[in-house]
Amino acid sequence: MDIADWRKKIDALDQEILRLLNERAHAAMEIGKIKETTHAAVYEPDRERTIFANLHKANHGPLTNHDLTQIYGHLISIMRDLQTRR
Amino acid sequence: MDIADWRKKIDALDQEILRLLNERAHAAMEIGKIKETTHAAVYEPDRERTIFANLHKANHGPLTNHDLTQIYGHLISIMRDLQTRR
Repeated sequence: MDIADWRKKIDALDQEILRLLNERAHAAMEIGKIKETTHAAVYEPDRERTIFANLHKANHGPLTNHDLTQIYGHLISIMRDLQTRR
Repeated sequence: MDIADWRKKIDALDQEILRLLNERAHAAMEIGKIKETTHAAVYEPDRERTIFANLHKANHGPLTNHDLTQIYGHLISIMRDLQTRR
């Protein structure tokens, strides 16, 4: 496969990743709504630790667990912001 | 659905996202190898603009295009780093 072939593969993966990120964002927003009605805290460090632990356990690379912590730390922070944006 | 149900959904989505991110990282590393043998530049702003344009075009929310630019800006930077890490 040449660069153009790999890029086609990346573009297809990105469409799937985009769809899943939006599904995840939708779920996070639904949790945000429930938390709002129950006056629960938006930031829950224990839940975030569980998310990281699940990712690290299932990760077989080539991304390292450190990479995933970086990516998801950023992702979770954006989705947490989304919970308060409505 | 209560918070626990939505979290189960998020956990399942994260397993899929993890798999796709690693597939994407693998493809980026293959491109990195080809670039190394052809002495091509690792950083290509035009290609990154294309990636953002594709994402924005396909995005129907709830993440905004600005969110996606943030998420992918970070993601691409980690994957670019991966291309030079071997």
